[in-house]
Parts: sequence; C-alpha cells; structure tokens
Amino acid sequence: MAANFGKNYKISIFGESHGSALGVNIDGIPAGTELDLEFISQEMRRRAPGRSELTTPRVEKDEFEILSGFFDGKTTGTPLAMIIRNSNQRSKDYSELKRKPRPGHADWSGFNRYNGFNDIRGSGHFSGRITASLVFAGAIAKQILRERGILIAAHIKSVKDIEDRDFVESDITEENIDKLRNMTLPVLNEEIVEKIEKAVEKTREEKNSLGGIVELMVTGLPAGIGDPYFESMESELSRMIFSVPATKGIEFGAGFGITEMTGYEANDEMFYDEKGNIKSFTNNNGGIIGGITTGMPISFKVAIKPTASIERAQKTVNLETKQNDILEVRGRHDPIIVPRVVPVLEAATAIVILDRVLESKKREL
Amino acid sequence: MAANFGKNYKISIFGESHGSALGVNIDGIPAGTELDLEFISQEMRRRAPGRSELTTPRVEKDEFEILSGFFDGKTTGTPLAMIIRNSNQRSKDYSELKRKPRPGHADWSGFNRYNGFNDIRGSGHFSGRITASLVFAGAIAKQILRERGILIAAHIKSVKDIEDRDFVESDITEENIDKLRNMTLPVLNEEIVEKIEKAVEKTREEKNSLGGIVELMVTGLPAGIGDPYFESMESELSRMIFSVPATKGIEFGAGFGITEMTGYEANDEMFYDEKGNIKSFTNNNGGIIGGITTGMPISFKVAIKPTASIERAQKTVNLETKQNDILEVRGRHDPIIVPRVVPVLEAATAIVILDRVLESKKREL
Amino acid sequence: MAANFGKNYKISIFGESHGSALGVNIDGIPAGTELDLEFISQEMRRRAPGRSELTTPRVEKDEFEILSGFFDGKTTGTPLAMIIRNSNQRSKDYSELKRKPRPGHADWSGFNRYNGFNDIRGSGHFSGRITASLVFAGAIAKQILRERGILIAAHIKSVKDIEDRDFVESDITEENIDKLRNMTLPVLNEEIVEKIEKAVEKTREEKNSLGGIVELMVTGLPAGIGDPYFESMESELSRMIFSVPATKGIEFGAGFGITEMTGYEANDEMFYDEKGNIKSFTNNNGGIIGGITTGMPISFKVAIKPTASIERAQKTVNLETKQNDILEVRGRHDPIIVPRVVPVLEAATAIVILDRVLESKKREL
Amino acid sequence: MAANFGKNYKISIFGESHGSALGVNIDGIPAGTELDLEFISQEMRRRAPGRSELTTPRVEKDEFEILSGFFDGKTTGTPLAMIIRNSNQRSKDYSELKRKPRPGHADWSGFNRYNGFNDIRGSGHFSGRITASLVFAGAIAKQILRERGILIAAHIKSVKDIEDRDFVESDITEENIDKLRNMTLPVLNEEIVEKIEKAVEKTREEKNSLGGIVELMVTGLPAGIGDPYFESMESELSRMIFSVPATKGIEFGAGFGITEMTGYEANDEMFYDEKGNIKSFTNNNGGIIGGITTGMPISFKVAIKPTASIERAQKTVNLETKQNDILEVRGRHDPIIVPRVVPVLEAATAIVILDRVLESKKREL
Repeated sequence: MAANFGKNYKISIFGESHGSALGVNIDGIPAGTELDLEFISQEMRRRAPGRSELTTPRVEKDEFEILSGFFDGKTTGTPLAMIIRNSNQRSKDYSELKRKPRPGHADWSGFNRYNGFNDIRGSGHFSGRITASLVFAGAIAKQILRERGILIAAHIKSVKDIEDRDFVESDITEENIDKLRNMTLPVLNEEIVEKIEKAVEKTREEKNSLGGIVELMVTGLPAGIGDPYFESMESELSRMIFSVPATKGIEFGAGFGITEMTGYEANDEMFYDEKGNIKSFTNNNGGIIGGITTGMPISFKVAIKPTASIERAQKTVNLETKQNDILEVRGRHDPIIVPRVVPVLEAATAIVILDRVLESKKREL
Repeated sequence: MAANFGKNYKISIFGESHGSALGVNIDGIPAGTELDLEFISQEMRRRAPGRSELTTPRVEKDEFEILSGFFDGKTTGTPLAMIIRNSNQRSKDYSELKRKPRPGHADWSGFNRYNGFNDIRGSGHFSGRITASLVFAGAIAKQILRERGILIAAHIKSVKDIEDRDFVESDITEENIDKLRNMTLPVLNEEIVEKIEKAVEKTREEKNSLGGIVELMVTGLPAGIGDPYFESMESELSRMIFSVPATKGIEFGAGFGITEMTGYEANDEMFYDEKGNIKSFTNNNGGIIGGITTGMPISFKVAIKPTASIERAQKTVNLETKQNDILEVRGRHDPIIVPRVVPVLEAATAIVILDRVLESKKREL
Repeated sequence: MAANFGKNYKISIFGESHGSALGVNIDGIPAGTELDLEFISQEMRRRAPGRSELTTPRVEKDEFEILSGFFDGKTTGTPLAMIIRNSNQRSKDYSELKRKPRPGHADWSGFNRYNGFNDIRGSGHFSGRITASLVFAGAIAKQILRERGILIAAHIKSVKDIEDRDFVESDITEENIDKLRNMTLPVLNEEIVEKIEKAVEKTREEKNSLGGIVELMVTGLPAGIGDPYFESMESELSRMIFSVPATKGIEFGAGFGITEMTGYEANDEMFYDEKGNIKSFTNNNGGIIGGITTGMPISFKVAIKPTASIERAQKTVNLETKQNDILEVRGRHDPIIVPRVVPVLEAATAIVILDRVLESKKREL
Repeated sequence: MAANFGKNYKISIFGESHGSALGVNIDGIPAGTELDLEFISQEMRRRAPGRSELTTPRVEKDEFEILSGFFDGKTTGTPLAMIIRNSNQRSKDYSELKRKPRPGHADWSGFNRYNGFNDIRGSGHFSGRITASLVFAGAIAKQILRERGILIAAHIKSVKDIEDRDFVESDITEENIDKLRNMTLPVLNEEIVEKIEKAVEKTREEKNSLGGIVELMVTGLPAGIGDPYFESMESELSRMIFSVPATKGIEFGAGFGITEMTGYEANDEMFYDEKGNIKSFTNNNGGIIGGITTGMPISFKVAIKPTASIERAQKTVNLETKQNDILEVRGRHDPIIVPRVVPVLEAATAIVILDRVLESKKREL
C-alpha cells in the first residue's frame, strides 16, 4: 500500500523487474508545461545499466512511452502516465531463490509481506529498476524547478573510505550540474576517480560489492518553504529518500557531526550579504530549521549500502528443508550501485521540492 | 499544514509554548483499551523540564486532561483529545526576538513561512514543549504494543565524543526498559554518566550547549510488517523522527558505517536458531529490508543537535535596521536537550510502529 | 478513523455529547487573519438549542475557547484548536439504551463498530452536538471567503410537504444572508412560516418529529475551481455534507429532476451577459460540470430526515434478553432538527469551498 | 489533482478519450487473489459502446492489458496496473469545439481549470471512456467481495417518467445479478423494456437525449462497517459516485422521500428474525446510520442526467469572437447513457465497499 507519494505533485508507481512493463502516473503537473523530452531521456540513461564498466553489463534501454496528459508537446494538466516495457526478460529459473532467500535482499521480508505471492524474478517490485519511474517524474520536476531558478545537484561524497570534498554553494551552477550529469563517476575532486575505479575493479574480481555516500544540494529556494512537524522539509525528503532501495541513512547539514559541536559552533550565525540578503556564515542546519527553509542551500547526505547481489557463497536458510543452507547467486550484478543511484536521488529530491513549492502557493490566498 | 500524522493511528497536534494550551487529537485507538494513566503520567514527566540539574530549571507540570474518547476507564474508539494548560507563561518582552532572529532557531524561517504572524513567545509552535503531545500519544501506543509483545527502548548513544555501547537484542527486556526510563541519563554503560554530567556542567558554565546521539530499538515485530517505497518502515519512521525538533540525522542498522563495508560484510547472512526462527548473524540492515521488517530488531540512531538557545552573544541580523547586529538571549535553557528528547523519540517511534501494525491488519481479509 | 477532513483547510474533530469537552483542531488557516469572534459566536448560537419553541428546551451555551493558533487578535498560521465544555451533563441512567438500541439512531450500528465501548450518553460521539465544531470551523471559512467576495446562503426549502420557493442568484446578497441568519425559520416565502410552526407544534404534541429539505447556494466563485473525478466539487461537497448527521440525500442543480428532462432542456445553454461574462440561461448543473465550477452559482439541496428521537413507544430488540422489546425514550427532543441543521450545512459548505479555493492556488506556480 | 481514490484499495487513474491509452494503477489488492479475467472482460463489455441499438454505434473494444502485479494467474500484492489502448481515434477537426464550448459539457469549466491546455478531443480526460478504469478496478473488487458473500446489484429505476419497481433484499441473488448483467436494459419489471426502447428511439430521432435513475443495493455486509463523520459510508460512496460523469444526485434509503415522513414512519423499527439476526421492518436509512452499516442492505439511488452530446443546434458563446453563437455538434452519440452507466456505478460501489471492508480489519488488533 505504498505506491503513492505527494500531495500536490502526486505520483503512483507500479511494475516489476521482469513483468511486462513498469511506470508511473503523475497527477498535478502544471498545465501547459513544454516537456523537454531529450532531457528526460538523458536522465533515464544516467540511471540505466550498461553505461560503463562500473555497472552491470545488462542492457536496459528504459525507453519510455507517455500514455496520457501530454498533447501537442505540452502537458494538459490531467494525469500523465508513462510506461517502460521490460524487454530484457530472461526466462531464468528462479526456483532456488524461492527456497533460499538472499541475504541483504527483500526476499525474506517480502515473502512474509506478500504471503509468498510476490513476483521474485529479478527482485520483482523490489528491483532498483522500479526507480526508473522516479527518474522520469523527477526529470519533469527538475525542469519545472530549473525554469524557476531552483537547481538540484548531487555528487558521490565517498566510496568506502575514498572521500570527495563537500559541496559549497558556488558549485551549484547549471554548467557544473551538466558536467556532473555527464560523468560516469560524478565527483568534485577528479583525482579520486581513478582510485574509485580501481577499488571497484578489485571488488568485482573478489565477487564482492561496495557502497558509498551521496551528497545533494538544492539552491534557489526562498526562506519560508516547508512546514513544522509532520510535513517538515526533512520529513518529506527523508520519507522519499528512504523509498530508494539501498538507502540506510540520511543527514542534513552537519548531520551526525553536529552532535560533536557545541551550540555556539552549531548555530548558524546570520548576516546581511552585500545584496541585502540574509545569509548564515555556516550551514550546519542544511538550509532547514523548524522544518522550513532558511534561504541557505538545502544540503544533505545519503548512505547507500553495498549492492546486496554478490556472486559469493553466502549462508542462508532453506525454506523447503527448514535447514541452514548455502546460496550462490549467479548473474550480472553491479559491483557498486552508487553511481546509478545518484540520478535517482536527484529525481527523488526534485519530486519532493516541487511538491513543497506547490504546497506553499496556497498561502497566497 | 503539517499537524497530522498517521493513516491508522492518527494524530493531530496543536499548541504554542505560551498559548493557553497545547494538545492532540488521536483517532484510531482501538476501542476498549484500558489506559494506564499512571504510565502516561510517568512518560510525561520524563520529558518535562526541571527533573534534574541537567535540564532547564523551568518547571512545567505537563498535567494532561483527557477531553473525549475515554469513558469508564476505557477508550471508546472515537477520537481521544488531550490538552495541557500552559501555566508557566511569563509576560516577558519578546520584541527583541521579533527584530533579531536567533541563530539555530526557527525564528527566521518561521517568520517567512507565516509572514510574521506566528506567535514567537517561547518559540511558539516551534517550541519543544509541543512534543508533550507526542509523548502522550506515544505512551498510549507503547502500552498497546507492549500488551502484544512489542517493546521499544532508547538510550543515549553519545554526548559529544563520550560514547555509550550499542544496544544488543538481549538488552530489550521490560526490566531494562524500566531501568532506563528511570535514569536521568539513560545509558547502558553507567561509567559514562559522570563524564557526561561533567561535560554538561562545563558547557553550562560556558553559556554553551551540547548535543548527542540517541539509539532506539524495537523488538517483537514479526517479519513482513511495512511496505516497499513510499510507506517503507524507514520512510514512515524518518518522517516522524524528523518532526522532532533538533533532529538532524537518522540511520538504520549500520547506517552511514555500512558504506565502508563490502557487500559480503554488509549482507546479513541468515540461519535457523534453535527454536526454528529465522535470524541473521548480523543486523546491519537494522531489521528492515525493502521497507519491510525482517523479524530482527528494528535498530536506528538519531542525531540531536546542541540546544540552539544559549546565553552567549551571537551574530544575527536586525530586521528593523536592516543591519548586522548582536543578540544576547537571556533565559533558563537546557544545556543539553538529549535526555529530554529520549522519551520523545521513543514515543514518536511507538506512534509509527502502531500505525504500521494496524496497517498490516488489512491484509488479513 | 474519520475525524479528519480537508487537504488544505484541514480539520480534526473530537468530542461526545456528555464528555468533558468537544472541539476541533484546524490546520491551514491563512496566517494574519483577523477573526471576527462576534460573528463566530452568532453562528454558534444559530446552531445551539433553546433558541425558540421549535427546538429542544435544553440549553447549551456553546461557549468556545480558542487554545492555540490565535495571537493578538489574528491567526498565527499554525494549528488553531477550539474547545467547548459540556456543562449540561445530567447523570441520567443510560442502561436501558445500552440494552435496547433506539430505532433510527446509531446505537446499533455504533455498538457493532466499537464493540460496545462507545460512550452512549446523549448519543456520545454521534450526537448532533458534535457539529458545533463544524459551525466554528465553517464560520472562520465563511469570513475568509466573504472577504474575497464568495458568499454562502441557505434556506429551508421544505418541511414535510410545505414548500418554499427556490433560490435565484439575486437572492444571495450580504443583506439577505443576514436576514436569513436571523430568522428562526429561514425561508424566502415568509407566508409559510406559520404553516411550518403549526405543523411542528402538531408533531410535538403527537410525540413525533418532522424532516425537510435545505437548499444551499454559493456565489462569487470563478469558473475553473475544482477537479475532475475523485476531488470533483460534488465529491468533496457530498462527502462533507453526508458527515452531517440526519442527511439522507444530496442533489446538485436540477438534481433528480434532471432525469425527467431531455438533454436539450437539461443542457445549460450559454451566453455573454451585458458585462461580457459568460453565463448560462439555466443552471440545471448547479454551477458544476466535470467536477469544476462553471462560474454560475453552486446550487444544491440536502434531505434531512425527521429527528430520530421521539417519545413514542417503538419496537426494538433487547440485547440482553435477546427478545423483541418496546422502547420508550424520555427526554427533551427537537420536534424538527432542520432549522438547526441550516447553519451546520452552511458551515460544512464553507469548509469545503475554502479547501478547494486553496487547492486551486497551486496551479499558479 | 484528483486521480487518486481509496485508503486501502487505492486506485490512480489516467487517460484521455483520444490519447494513446487510458488505465489505472491499483495498490492494495490482497496478495494471492486468482483473478477471473473472463469476468473482468464481461464487465468491460457491459460498459463498452456498440452493444445495442441504445448506445452509440462507435465500437470500442476496451481490451485491457495488465502490466504488473499479476503473476502466474494470481495477484502479487504489489501495484497492479492496467492499460487500454485507444484504437478508435479519428483525426477529426476539434477547432470549432475549442472556440465554442458545448452546453452541458466540461468544455468551459475545463478550459478555465487547465488554462486551455487540456486535450479536448472526444472530451479528453472528461470522457466517459475514462470510467473503463473504474469498471476494471471494480470488477476485481466485486470478485473479492463476492467470494466473501458480499453482493452488489444495480438496475435502472427510471428513464424519464418510466419507472421500474424498487429493489427488495430478496432480489439480490447471484442468479438475479447475472440476469441483470446480461440485460441491455437491466430492469426488474420487464414490461417497461419496450416502453424505454420506444422512448429512446423517439429521442434519437429528435436528436435529443434522455436520463434516468439507477438503484443500487449491497448485501452481505455485517453491522459495524464504516465510520462516523468524514469517512461515513455515505461520504465515501457519494464521493466516489459523483466522480462518475453525468451524476447529479444521490440518496440513501428513502432519500428525499424521507423528508415527507414523520420520525415514527422514518425510524426503522427493529426485531430479531427467525435466525436470531437483528433486522429492521423498513430500511428508510438505506442500511447506514451514523455512517455505519446496520446489517440491512445498503440501498441508494443515483440521478444520471441526459447525455449532454446532442446533435441539435444550441446557443453558446464564441470565445474567439466574444459573441453569442450557435453550435451544432455532429457525431455518434448515445441517446441515453444510463444503461452504460449501470456497470460503472456497480464498479464504483464495489471499490468503495472493498476499501471500507479492508479499513474495518484494523480494528481487529
């Protein structure tokens, strides 16, 4: 019961990895928006596998078809539905997985949730492939926000112990965003690219996998967007971000690090900048206080776990024999999912931000 | 527009620090529940200030009055509303705060959100005092869950760099929970109590404040509770937890640390325990995979920032003169809010868990 | 699980007839609204009993107290909670009603819904008294709408077979509305007042009761408010109107009568009026087509059943003896509830219209 | 913003009459349901045009494709999406309609709602064709309910002034329902079939159209389903029913007629039947009191307006010339839409009832 998100920019997702199609129904796109279909396609390709050595060699084209809500190149304002056909369905034997749940995967929890009826082929509805719908809905949101001066950027902050530097506000330009969008490993300090590549290559050879941290930043939002308590900006963002498979943590501004500061260090002291805008010297609160934007950039980091699918033998249970057992998964897996998660997280963020910007309009009665 | 939470156990909160009352309306309490009013009162006192040297010397009694939905000692099944009168309203002069927003507080973001009309006395609706309503709703949820074998515990994992050990599943007994509930500083390793007290005392003398990390654990939930995507257990929990003022981060299981593991280390390998239950050797996923419980304890950590209210002079802006200015706040503040946040986080967790347990009932058509 | 209404102007109600208080929490009132407390009080009195010979002689003062969200005479934008203490609680013996459900009342259905735990004193949560909260929330909505030129009016269209004439658009002026608000029996054709009074008097003597039809009209809404399908204006209005106890039917424009017209008669042919506004010659669609306003007045009628509480002996079941039985209710009942329902229906309408007007703001991105 | 309905059985619809496809995403179907695809197809055909002389000669096949949530003949429990391709798209010239809104249609209200960007070909998103998605979702709900002894039936109660008799509870058998489902004009008194046919034929010749009333009945629901106030059974049903295009009124039980009864006549006196079940002698409340089922059949009537599309010249405005004008629509229209609305109303009812039955499960904690 969890396919729907949003109060104003509303999405409803569906699909399985090996079903006939996946997709999304979007309600609440402002009427008359000229969609940049090429931009959407680029975003889809950023998430799609087979783009580099770092991802699974599986090829998914992620060619989308818009079914409704789009007429003469513009959105109609009525629901816009999109589907992607699943072309790469190999009729593999999934009977072993049915018996032996994969560690780190939703096989066991999903089995209990759906009484064993969920489609487990290619992880079914739990497949990361489902996030293609988020990327699509997010690309539209991004475009609408960008046209209003609101920019969203992301980079890989770390892979294992290899760290990139943090975003600063001046990083967030359309140029830099385009550059990051075109990088296989979107990082700020390009010297670490080779290190990451080597670490990933080593991991692949060891039939193992890696995770990492993604940092996101949103600029261009005025102070006053969001609400206290249950629709706080952090509440809405975290709710959406934890919908992205493999996410295990989120922190805003200085995040967990803020717990080692004193109040005097943590409080973001304020000043008028030369243009008369109110700014803060630091941004330990990540641009949000009391659930509401401060006018500083929204800044947060997301922990992505190592890909659960690895080819190594692992201990698991056998639901048939009721004995402990060993599972060896074969297949073409991503040794690291982080680079492909980057556009998903950007899209997820864009969906939330647009929803909240629309929400703020109702104050202008 | 953010007063409401929950789909099945639904709460609607209201109130300001210095208004005439704060409270909550709860819809969805199962009919016929005998409320343990003494337990609720105890929980309220855990959050109330004035309990120890570590908190503000302000005394708030937090005496609640139930207005509806409760008859002959049992819940009726119809909405149960509760209010707490604000007795300790000093008619202080708030005009300086109106001009000079406090760094780290929602003064500036709230000013923009409400066009300057929000009540700023004692932080108004943004006051931590509002969480008394969460504690109340959470105490009822806790009781209902406990009667079904579901336990929720919390301890202070760290204050600044002083660290407690992590929870293990066997810590979560009714006895231990009662013990933690009665500690001013609920920690597992009691040797750190004095260290924390000294650190807090020093901070108070320096007119500064401290933050920390709280760890929570939920046991007794079967595998299969929760949903994928937008109503994942992590989504629902994080959405609620970020409603608690001062929260800046949340991580499940190994959290951000999981990004430094390999997949083989991170995947929680499974086995049958001696009773035939399916368990995992580790719990890096924090008891949730694919948004759904695995049957292992739900485990997560929450970052709480240092109290924003400090008596030191801080740089801020003057909205009247449109110049940079200095603010010196006088008042009785908590040098650390973490101990008082512990019962709030437990309560917040209980509200979500009960809502999700109720949600799972509809599968049993 | 049904205490909450609204997406933008959100209310959460609570209370029982003989509990300690009833009330409502309202989230989404625009910040900075100067509330006309005298107007609110007047509206409350319109609903309160004891106002004339036509109602129950019970006196309820319905004196409300605002607990939050209101500061210096203006709304703060944060949740505004209101309570009304129940002063007139007689410690009557309700044990007979517990055994013998009253025909026409929610005793039996409620017993099953709440497993017998609901408070049945004075009908408990099912009491019409709970609608005082709607009147309060509606009075605020009415004021906000009126300040933007949107007017809501209601009159008694019929009592039994005594019929008033229908509203025409020109009836809806502030003057006429004030006149109707001050009438004990708000009708357009004042010649029927005496007829109705006599019919009610006769009914009271016969220990019986009467029902009737209320007509409502909303003017000043531009074309384009509302949405197709599940948030159509009719959907939102009817959902709210059927929340008002005793409602058994609703029809928009020509309503059921439209089924006896041909398409040519029913279609509202359009024209430009002298001011260049688009109007229709007729308004058989009641100002709404495709769920969206046309710019013509919204017009609808509501069927209110005769008061279920009558003093006559009635056949019912005895849940204790499991035998058929006879129930004789004693008490001070309204021989007709219609006049007191009129302000409730106006208020209910105002809540929905404000919610929909706020909803329409998000298109103006 | 109105594509979504339901809290437990949740649907999200999309599509336009002449877009590439329409469809629905359904979240909340119990996992492991074996779908009766032939039954679904039959239901789709009942709504589809071209079935008899009484409908438009347009042929729409309404062949659906299930995209997700369905595996090995059973539902998976994850979202089930369905699409229907629009094959019968004639590239007609719609420019006249763009200038001259059709009376009785959503052309003018929709133009204002969507700033002129909505797809007006074949009425676009406002087309009755969109209700095919309701029929699909309703067919699944019907099947699930029927397997639990809950039956839904509908018949045409009247066409203009030609009246059928009312349902009685004993009409609602699987046999009778199947019979009604197979009738072009589903009525109880078959003597009126010819009368209706003649009236429709005459209307068609006159380039005019007819409306009518549909009566629905739901049996097999125990007492206690539903909630008071904003999620009352009447609230949820009416909200959904008014989503069906052409609906102008709904009444439960005796409906508007109840306003001419006295309380003594209207109150449904109760008794134990021979099996010990609690029943009422009459059912003027339509099986719902206080928003909650009484155990008597749910009974309600729906007013359907005459088809707005007629070939006669009608007065309208010309948005280009800003002058009054005359519109003559050409096309293949239904002279009466009532028979095709019958299965839509049944389906709409089934969706609501299933949602409410699922809702009631959460009480069984």
